[in-house]
Amino acid sequence: MEAEGPLVSVLDHGALKLIQSYGDDSMICRAARVSVDGGVREGTPSKERDRVLIRYLAKQHHTSPFEHCGATFYVKAPIFVLRQWHRHRTQSYNELSGRYSTTFGEYYLPTVERLITEQSQDSRQGQGRVKGPEEALMAREKIREHCEKALEEYHSLLEMGVSRELARSVLPLNVYSEMYATANLWNWTRFLKLRLAQDAQFEIRAYAKAILAALREVFPTGMGAFAEMEGWG
Amino acid sequence: MEAEGPLVSVLDHGALKLIQSYGDDSMICRAARVSVDGGVREGTPSKERDRVLIRYLAKQHHTSPFEHCGATFYVKAPIFVLRQWHRHRTQSYNELSGRYSTTFGEYYLPTVERLITEQSQDSRQGQGRVKGPEEALMAREKIREHCEKALEEYHSLLEMGVSRELARSVLPLNVYSEMYATANLWNWTRFLKLRLAQDAQFEIRAYAKAILAALREVFPTGMGAFAEMEGWG
Amino acid sequence: MEAEGPLVSVLDHGALKLIQSYGDDSMICRAARVSVDGGVREGTPSKERDRVLIRYLAKQHHTSPFEHCGATFYVKAPIFVLRQWHRHRTQSYNELSGRYSTTFGEYYLPTVERLITEQSQDSRQGQGRVKGPEEALMAREKIREHCEKALEEYHSLLEMGVSRELARSVLPLNVYSEMYATANLWNWTRFLKLRLAQDAQFEIRAYAKAILAALREVFPTGMGAFAEMEGWG
Amino acid sequence: MEAEGPLVSVLDHGALKLIQSYGDDSMICRAARVSVDGGVREGTPSKERDRVLIRYLAKQHHTSPFEHCGATFYVKAPIFVLRQWHRHRTQSYNELSGRYSTTFGEYYLPTVERLITEQSQDSRQGQGRVKGPEEALMAREKIREHCEKALEEYHSLLEMGVSRELARSVLPLNVYSEMYATANLWNWTRFLKLRLAQDAQFEIRAYAKAILAALREVFPTGMGAFAEMEGWG
Repeated sequence: MEAEGPLVSVLDHGALKLIQSYGDDSMICRAARVSVDGGVREGTPSKERDRVLIRYLAKQHHTSPFEHCGATFYVKAPIFVLRQWHRHRTQSYNELSGRYSTTFGEYYLPTVERLITEQSQDSRQGQGRVKGPEEALMAREKIREHCEKALEEYHSLLEMGVSRELARSVLPLNVYSEMYATANLWNWTRFLKLRLAQDAQFEIRAYAKAILAALREVFPTGMGAFAEMEGWG
Repeated sequence: MEAEGPLVSVLDHGALKLIQSYGDDSMICRAARVSVDGGVREGTPSKERDRVLIRYLAKQHHTSPFEHCGATFYVKAPIFVLRQWHRHRTQSYNELSGRYSTTFGEYYLPTVERLITEQSQDSRQGQGRVKGPEEALMAREKIREHCEKALEEYHSLLEMGVSRELARSVLPLNVYSEMYATANLWNWTRFLKLRLAQDAQFEIRAYAKAILAALREVFPTGMGAFAEMEGWG
Repeated sequence: MEAEGPLVSVLDHGALKLIQSYGDDSMICRAARVSVDGGVREGTPSKERDRVLIRYLAKQHHTSPFEHCGATFYVKAPIFVLRQWHRHRTQSYNELSGRYSTTFGEYYLPTVERLITEQSQDSRQGQGRVKGPEEALMAREKIREHCEKALEEYHSLLEMGVSRELARSVLPLNVYSEMYATANLWNWTRFLKLRLAQDAQFEIRAYAKAILAALREVFPTGMGAFAEMEGWG
Repeated sequence: MEAEGPLVSVLDHGALKLIQSYGDDSMICRAARVSVDGGVREGTPSKERDRVLIRYLAKQHHTSPFEHCGATFYVKAPIFVLRQWHRHRTQSYNELSGRYSTTFGEYYLPTVERLITEQSQDSRQGQGRVKGPEEALMAREKIREHCEKALEEYHSLLEMGVSRELARSVLPLNVYSEMYATANLWNWTRFLKLRLAQDAQFEIRAYAKAILAALREVFPTGMGAFAEMEGWG
């Protein structure tokens, strides 16, 4: 288990932090080698032999050895990002609950640049037609005003005695929530494959990039092999 | 595969519909009996013997035979309900996407009765302190006004050229979305166990009740055994 | 739910039978289209449009729509085949139990041809060096004699009063066992990808081929798209 | 990540060794508290408050916080034990392969005591009727002789040039194999619940007991809460 990583800023108020990891490059190799050697040998083959083996495993999609490694992240992200994230059903989640808590107070406001930029040509879903900086600034202000109002309504409903679980229903999808997410290394690579892709939404890609960076530090060869293979730069 | 069930209304604008099911009470027994008998016998032991076996399996938590049955539902529910639903990681989901679609136009408005009623005593999370009908009506109107405004903002952002994936960020959590959800019978019982419980939120309980009713028709003995055991009335 | 398929022979005493299936090509499309259209429309777009959509989904690895379809098979296979099979953790299994049953009486005897043939060059694991037919025949007879003896010992231990769960410990890995296996269509394609591969063992490939044939009949477009993409002939 | 545990003997030639663990009692609490508090606070509430919370979570089956902890074991066990083990589909496995390796040389020989003892009255599956020590000794010798012969045949087939993947088919189910198995803490408790039960087979119970002991050292409160609740002594 590595020491906790730094709290990395993502988007305007979001964050990501490596809480713990387990396994390492040599665990991957040890698990892989049991199929041939058996034994509980802790023998330490050369780093170079490990590197060759790990790249072979990644390339051949021999995925099981990567399942003996993993990591837990603390994540603070807009709810619409968490909605995409939770479609990954092989992670373990604990999230801030709108039934137990009323600590929702921040929302995601896209930058003017983000509001203008169209996503890649082949990605229809992100396509906008905002004309230029002025129009983008106007849109940004509209979002801000609306979200400020929504938070006000939320607290006003709570004050009227409406239960937390109902009051939260007026919160917008860009409100920040928080969670812990744990997955094994193989499943993190599946997350990254989808969420680093060109057609993934910009906002979740920002988190995926931070996860990739953190996992490359802990599993330089294991994650490096996938990064190279998939062209994750 | 049964014929599709009726479109059942849930909450104010929600719905649930059994799209397909697979397996039946006799499939449960056949799977269970392979452990003793092997064979591909289609023999039809008496209904009574099947009933006794299924109740035994349910009671002993011999869950694997229930995995060869299952069902797909169409669900229209507020996003905060779907957020709870998606924590069940053993279901298969396809949902309306705010990146591809702009067909969001309805939101959930709790009744005055719902706004007043406190949930069960031992459930802190649902507890509200709305004084009475007038205050509840006021809260309800506040929610309505805010949501109407939110939908207006959403469409106005789209018209300004903001991409769908960003415009949706102002939509409130009570906006209705739609999905297909498939799970095997054992996993539906796990969903029901959590979502029919006293401390489950009223809104998802409404869906859980509709699912229980639909599954009891298709799997009278299989689902009936769990319903009796768990006291699902 | 389709009618049951025929009992297909696999290897010398093995078998495979489609017991039930759920969903169909149009269910795949319906699930996929909910992301854009929402709605519970049963509308029937042209077969051609469905075909184009399904091929697109398969190619883009948009896998969730394939999870609303699936199939259950009855399988009779040597235990060493089932050992490989059970590594697929997304299937539901019920198997003949050596603790409950004593109906083990058949074993897999490879043909002379199989004993001689080396597997593909690049597959070290299957490589044998049996010189020719005579030597192969000798090996075959050795296996036969040993397995006959093993079954004799098994029954003799049972007669001595040894419990089933311990007596079975002398049974060889090529003894036939039986099971029901259910998986969704996406997971069947993952099974096939691994078990139809050149480096998969000949014996499990025989089962994989029978499964592919059965699923192509039920899901001509859905399974056809993967078969074409993966080159499954 | 704890240091590796000792190599614990199980059965006659079996073994179990804690290779790594992740998370700890305070990780469980931190994950649970995010639902109320959010935040990335590393604050250290008193051990006593943690203990109370963990016991509450276990009792209420709030299982998700236990998923951020876990452990990897090296296991050497008879194949019939691994067959039962692998039915747990939420663990990650890498096992010695009969296609790659020929290092199979040991088999499980039940003691005279084990051969005589009937399992609990209500467990038909383990019931034997071995009369007494002499008969048990005879049975034991029969098993020994047969397994020695089986290993001989195995090596003789290999010498004749039969491929490893086919030669192994004569190996008996009590031959020892080896694997690494990783699961999260919640899933280990599910394994233990089934495999420590009265009607679990004696041999896999021996491994389950060793796992329980190892996990209680690493997660004294987390595993202790389940052990107390389930009556695991």
